Amino acid sequence: MTSHLVTGIAELVTHDGRFAGPLGVVRDAALVVDDGRVAWAGPSSSAPAADARTDVEGRAVLPGFVDSHTHLVFAGDRADEFAARMAGARYTGGGIARTVAATRAAGDDALRAHLARLVAEAKAQGTTTLEIKSGYGLDVVHEERLLRLAREVTPETTFLGAHVVPPGIDRNAYLALVTGPMLAACAPHARWADVFCEPGSPHAFDGDESRAVLTAAASAGLGLRVHANQLGPGPGALLAVELGAASLDHATHLDDADVTALADAAAHGGPVVTLMPGVELSTRSPYPDARRLLHAGIEVALATDCNPGTCYSTSMPLMIALGVAHLRMTVEQAVRAATLGGARALRRDDVGHLRVGARADLCVVDAPSVAHLAYRPGVPLARTLDVG
Amino acid sequence: MTSHLVTGIAELVTHDGRFAGPLGVVRDAALVVDDGRVAWAGPSSSAPAADARTDVEGRAVLPGFVDSHTHLVFAGDRADEFAARMAGARYTGGGIARTVAATRAAGDDALRAHLARLVAEAKAQGTTTLEIKSGYGLDVVHEERLLRLAREVTPETTFLGAHVVPPGIDRNAYLALVTGPMLAACAPHARWADVFCEPGSPHAFDGDESRAVLTAAASAGLGLRVHANQLGPGPGALLAVELGAASLDHATHLDDADVTALADAAAHGGPVVTLMPGVELSTRSPYPDARRLLHAGIEVALATDCNPGTCYSTSMPLMIALGVAHLRMTVEQAVRAATLGGARALRRDDVGHLRVGARADLCVVDAPSVAHLAYRPGVPLARTLDVG
Ligand SMILES: [Zn+2]
Ligand SMILES: [Zn+2]
Repeated sequence: MTSHLVTGIAELVTHDGRFAGPLGVVRDAALVVDDGRVAWAGPSSSAPAADARTDVEGRAVLPGFVDSHTHLVFAGDRADEFAARMAGARYTGGGIARTVAATRAAGDDALRAHLARLVAEAKAQGTTTLEIKSGYGLDVVHEERLLRLAREVTPETTFLGAHVVPPGIDRNAYLALVTGPMLAACAPHARWADVFCEPGSPHAFDGDESRAVLTAAASAGLGLRVHANQLGPGPGALLAVELGAASLDHATHLDDADVTALADAAAHGGPVVTLMPGVELSTRSPYPDARRLLHAGIEVALATDCNPGTCYSTSMPLMIALGVAHLRMTVEQAVRAATLGGARALRRDDVGHLRVGARADLCVVDAPSVAHLAYRPGVPLARTLDVG
Repeated sequence: MTSHLVTGIAELVTHDGRFAGPLGVVRDAALVVDDGRVAWAGPSSSAPAADARTDVEGRAVLPGFVDSHTHLVFAGDRADEFAARMAGARYTGGGIARTVAATRAAGDDALRAHLARLVAEAKAQGTTTLEIKSGYGLDVVHEERLLRLAREVTPETTFLGAHVVPPGIDRNAYLALVTGPMLAACAPHARWADVFCEPGSPHAFDGDESRAVLTAAASAGLGLRVHANQLGPGPGALLAVELGAASLDHATHLDDADVTALADAAAHGGPVVTLMPGVELSTRSPYPDARRLLHAGIEVALATDCNPGTCYSTSMPLMIALGVAHLRMTVEQAVRAATLGGARALRRDDVGHLRVGARADLCVVDAPSVAHLAYRPGVPLARTLDVG
C-alpha cells in the first residue's frame, strides 16, 4: 500500500473541530491518504512525506457528497409527463405506475446499465456515497430484484415496497404483502426500510399503515427512514421520532409540535431531516423552511431524491445552490448538509467528513473555495478525486 | 470544403415553420453542414449524401444557445461577499467597485485568460453566441480596453460605461464623460450600448440620464439595450420602446402600461424582454413573470447575466431549468427563449435557429429530447457539437 499526499488545496473542508469555523476549514492545506483512509490533514507547511503526490493546484477539496435519498433503479423516463405538467397539465402521481411497468419489463442488464450510468453521472459531480431505494417493483419478485441490483452498487439500500399501493390491489392485501412475504424477500438485500406516509394522498399510506410497515421492518432488522409531510401535514414526523428513524425526508409541512419533537430528539440521535429542493424545483412546489429546522438545532441533510417523476437530477451541487437560494441556508449549512448531514442521515461515521480515519472520499471543486458550489450555480465545478 | 452529415438525431429543434410544433421539431432527423452553414435538415430517411458523417446516437440537437446578456470581462471573484449575503448581510451593490478595482489592476493577458476560461465554460454547456458588456472599467481607458478584449471573442460587444456612477465622481461630470469622450473611445469596439436605468438605486441612472446615454450612443451608431425595472418600477421599459432598443433586460417590475407598450411594439420588431433567472436565484429576489409577457405576445430571451456580483453562472441549461420552474415557462418557451429569443435580442438572423443558411452552431443534449434540459436540472447534458 502506498500513501498519497494531496497538495495545493486552497480550502479544505474537514468537519474536524480542530480546524476553523463551522466546517473545520484549513486554507493552503494538504491531506494524506493511506490504504483508502484519511491518514493526515492540515496546513501544507506541516505535511508529512508520502509515496505519491497529487497537486490540485489551488482548488478546494471537501468530503465527497453523501446523497442519502435516491430512487435510482428504474427504467424509462417521463420527460413528456414533465413537459405536459410544466405546460399546465395537473400532476396526479399516476406516473409512478408507468415507471413500475417499464421497470418490471426491463431485464436485469438493462436496469444495471441504466443504474450504472446514473451512478457515474452522480460521481462525475462529486457524489461518493449513494442511498438507493426500491419502490418501482411493487411485487415480491421485482422489489427483491431492484434491491439486489441496488446492492451491487451501494450498501445503502432501502426497501420501499410501501411507495404506493399499486392499482388494482386492495390496500389491506397490499399492506399484508409488504409487511409479510415482500419484507422477508427484500430484507436480506436492504439496510433500511422506508414508507411514503402521506394521509392526504390516496395511493400513499396513513399513520397506522406507516406504523405497521415500519414496525415490521424494524422487527426484520432494518433501520428506518420515512418519506412524510411532503404534500401536507401528517403523522409522519412524530412517527419518525417515536420509532427512532434515521431520517425524516421531505418535511415541507411541519407544525410546531413536529419541530419541537424533532428538536428534542436531535439531542440524542433523533431523525435527521432530509430536504430535497430539486423536487420543489421540478414540481413548482413551495420550498421547505430549512432555517426553522436549523434554528431548532435539527441536523439537516440535502439529497437529490433522484427519480423519473418529481426530480430527475443526480446533481448534489445543484442541491447546495438551491439549498442556499431557496431553502435560505448559509453556504456553510448547505455544504454541511450535503456531506456530514447526509452521512448522519445514513448513520455512517466513516463518510461525510475528512477527519483522520475517514474513507478517503474526496470531492474537488474547480475553484478556490467551496462557496463557489452555490456562487456559481449550474457550472459543473465539482468532481470526485480518486487517489491511492 | 467538405459537407458533413449529422445523423442519429432523436429530436432536432430547428425553429423552421416547415416542421412540427412551436419549435419546428423533426424526430429521427439528420442535418447537413456545408461551409459552416446548415445546408439541409429533415427526416433521416431522406438525408442527402455528404463527405463526412457524425452519428449522435439518439441524442437531441438544437441551435447552440445565444446568451445575449453577460458581463464576462472582469478580474477577481466575490464569493466571500456572496456567502456573507446568503448568511444575512445586506447586499448594497457596493461590490461593483471592488470588481472595478480588480479589473483595472489586471493586465490584458490576465483578463484575456479569465475571459477565455469563462467562454470555454459556456461553450462546454452549449453556448455558441455570447454578448459581452463592458462596465467594470468606468473610465475612458479601461472601458475601451474591456471592449477591445471582448471584441477578440465576440462581435456582440456592448458599451456599458453607464453601469454605475463610480464613487468620488460627480454624476453630471460622469454622464458627460460617458456620453462624450468615453463613448467616442468605445464606439469603435462596440456594436451596442446599454445603461443601468434604475431610478431607485443611487448609483444607477434615472430616466433622463438614461435617455441622454442612449441617444448619444444611437448618434454614435450603436444599437441600444437597456438594463431596467430590475429592482423596482421605472421609466426604462417605455424608454426602450420609444428609442427602439433591441432588448429590455431584467424587467421584473413592469406595470400594465409597460407591458402594453412592449406588446404593441412587439408587432413591429420592438424590444425583446431578456429574463435572467440566475440573478433572482443568486440574490433571493422575486422572479419576473414570464407568462404575462408571453401571453401578451412579447418575445422573451433567457440569458445568464454572468457577472461576479449577482449571478456568476455561464450555464444556459440552468437558465432553461429555472425559466421553466420559476418563470413558469413551458419547456418549449424556455428552449425558444434560450436560442431564437436570444438571437432576436441581438437582432441576429444567422444564429438561434437551424433553418437552411443558418450558422451551423449546434448544441447536442445527452438525452433523447430537449425537454431533458429542464427535466434533468443540474446535470451537464448539453455541449456544443463541432462539425465541418
Ligand atoms: Zn423519494
Ligand atoms: Zn447585467
